[in-house]
Amino acid sequence: MSSLTLALDAMGGDHGPHVTVPAALQALSHYPHLNLILVGDRIAIGEQLRRHNATESPRLQLLHAEQVVPMTERPIQALRTRRQSSMRLALDLVRDGQADACVSAGNTGALMAMAKVVIRTLPGIDRPALVATLPTLSDQPVYLLDLGANVVCDSETLFQFAVMGSVLAECVGQRRMPRLALLNVGSEEIKGNDQVQQAAQLLQACPQLNYRGFIEGDGIFSGAVDVIVCDGFVGNVTLKASEGIAHLLIQQLKQGIEGNLLARLLGWLLKGRLRRLNQRMNPDQYNGASLLGLRGIVVKSHGNADQAAFLRALEEAMVEVERQVPGRIKDRLESVLLDKS
Amino acid sequence: MSSLTLALDAMGGDHGPHVTVPAALQALSHYPHLNLILVGDRIAIGEQLRRHNATESPRLQLLHAEQVVPMTERPIQALRTRRQSSMRLALDLVRDGQADACVSAGNTGALMAMAKVVIRTLPGIDRPALVATLPTLSDQPVYLLDLGANVVCDSETLFQFAVMGSVLAECVGQRRMPRLALLNVGSEEIKGNDQVQQAAQLLQACPQLNYRGFIEGDGIFSGAVDVIVCDGFVGNVTLKASEGIAHLLIQQLKQGIEGNLLARLLGWLLKGRLRRLNQRMNPDQYNGASLLGLRGIVVKSHGNADQAAFLRALEEAMVEVERQVPGRIKDRLESVLLDKS
Repeated sequence: MSSLTLALDAMGGDHGPHVTVPAALQALSHYPHLNLILVGDRIAIGEQLRRHNATESPRLQLLHAEQVVPMTERPIQALRTRRQSSMRLALDLVRDGQADACVSAGNTGALMAMAKVVIRTLPGIDRPALVATLPTLSDQPVYLLDLGANVVCDSETLFQFAVMGSVLAECVGQRRMPRLALLNVGSEEIKGNDQVQQAAQLLQACPQLNYRGFIEGDGIFSGAVDVIVCDGFVGNVTLKASEGIAHLLIQQLKQGIEGNLLARLLGWLLKGRLRRLNQRMNPDQYNGASLLGLRGIVVKSHGNADQAAFLRALEEAMVEVERQVPGRIKDRLESVLLDKS
Repeated sequence: MSSLTLALDAMGGDHGPHVTVPAALQALSHYPHLNLILVGDRIAIGEQLRRHNATESPRLQLLHAEQVVPMTERPIQALRTRRQSSMRLALDLVRDGQADACVSAGNTGALMAMAKVVIRTLPGIDRPALVATLPTLSDQPVYLLDLGANVVCDSETLFQFAVMGSVLAECVGQRRMPRLALLNVGSEEIKGNDQVQQAAQLLQACPQLNYRGFIEGDGIFSGAVDVIVCDGFVGNVTLKASEGIAHLLIQQLKQGIEGNLLARLLGWLLKGRLRRLNQRMNPDQYNGASLLGLRGIVVKSHGNADQAAFLRALEEAMVEVERQVPGRIKDRLESVLLDKS
């Protein structure tokens, strides 16, 4: 396998180097063809390296960054004032060809804004989208986009999301002719707002996509389709609401189990199952949302990801590099647009 | 307690009189001050009455309707062509003062459209909203609106929803100064689209409402607030996605329990808990979404509600009659608008 290099925003996320450095070291020991560039505060990263008895090496480089993007900073502010931040420098490495992809657990809005300026969108793509997978009743997870990068989307943007999501499901998710749906308030053709109505027309007219029509909120988890497209407002609220109700359910089940002695005993015996359930519902297990539509690969980890979850994000970036996702999106887009014109 | 009369669209929902008639009879035996008018096909309803050894009486009247609104008919079509439908005649009874409220498990869009024309909105309300409660980590459920009546909403409409939801939480949910939030993609002030941004400004300027700011999707189930406002597209998708993931979780837990003999035994012992959990997550247990903002009371039952769930919808309508919800909304709205001008 040919080697590949990831640039890590080592300072991003709620835990910074405490999580990113051990995850990086784990990735290096798992994957001999992987090289990493840790970008961030030299002292903070060095401390973590020492704690784990690791040193810089040809496979593990350190690039010092003066600044960190605060988690709550406005994207436009970050874009203007954080040119020496770990996030920005990690993106610069991708732009300059020194890294094949960038991974960050930092401020999502800032990452979006910087990636758009530094790495730029592919020809034919107006705005990048944030995509991740969710569990379903079938064996295969479903790709949902956009998850909050674009709170307002017109039908053309939704169409572009459909192309990008289909390519990702095909080349990373390994689905043949991924089944695609638009998220809507009803499955009948007459339902929805103007954007989804018009996007449906664009998708119906596109033979390269396996468009299956509208899907309702409960259909997300049914496994009936591989890719679901919606605007970033709806996608973000839906994703977080799903996390919220999963948490509620698991809490209630735990409370029930703690209720009496017999139940406590059963609960103790069922603990492994509950833990696995919790993991399956835990978004960190599906960690590594991708910013699609850029000329390079950028993966966003959950801000409060732990080591295992951050490792998942690194692995997602590696697969996208190996499958050359941006190039594939570009090719597909060209063929679709050529057909349309 | 003074008597009250509900008009039932006995034909609505997936099961029609098979569910609505026994639920009606159960309600009559529970509540001595209740009168019901069953609206629908005389023969189909009569058959169910005979099956349950019931007959017409002063407390149980039957109003024949020639037509039924199909579940998939477009609202505009239903409005034009179903003037003799059970749904329409039940609404007419409310308009004419012969019933205090109408309950239907029929086509939601048609019910909305007909209710708006027949019963009309309150002064100062542009569009009615569909509201229901969802379970939370606290003891108290949360009111979420709009659930799909209005897929596009401006900030003024969201503000009206906030007033209506607060009144319902106060007089039916018995919360003092209900805590109110806008559903958004982030809790920081800068987040969201124009509609929620502007709605936030309107709400901040309104001292009669206990506005607490933005809430994210996972906050819906936290119990941190009593009322959450969003447009009908977001609300509908969120509600159904929550149903979907609850179903997924319960399925996975069941599968896990069926996995091996010990687990099966435990599962058998835990069955009651799982059933209760299922019930708590089952939207039918929270059945009875209200159409708020009308000059009369209209309650929408889930289309596939069973007898117990339809009974819940009847009870919701009774409480709204007793607490005079439309009058209270009208009063509150007048005081709010007076203050604004």
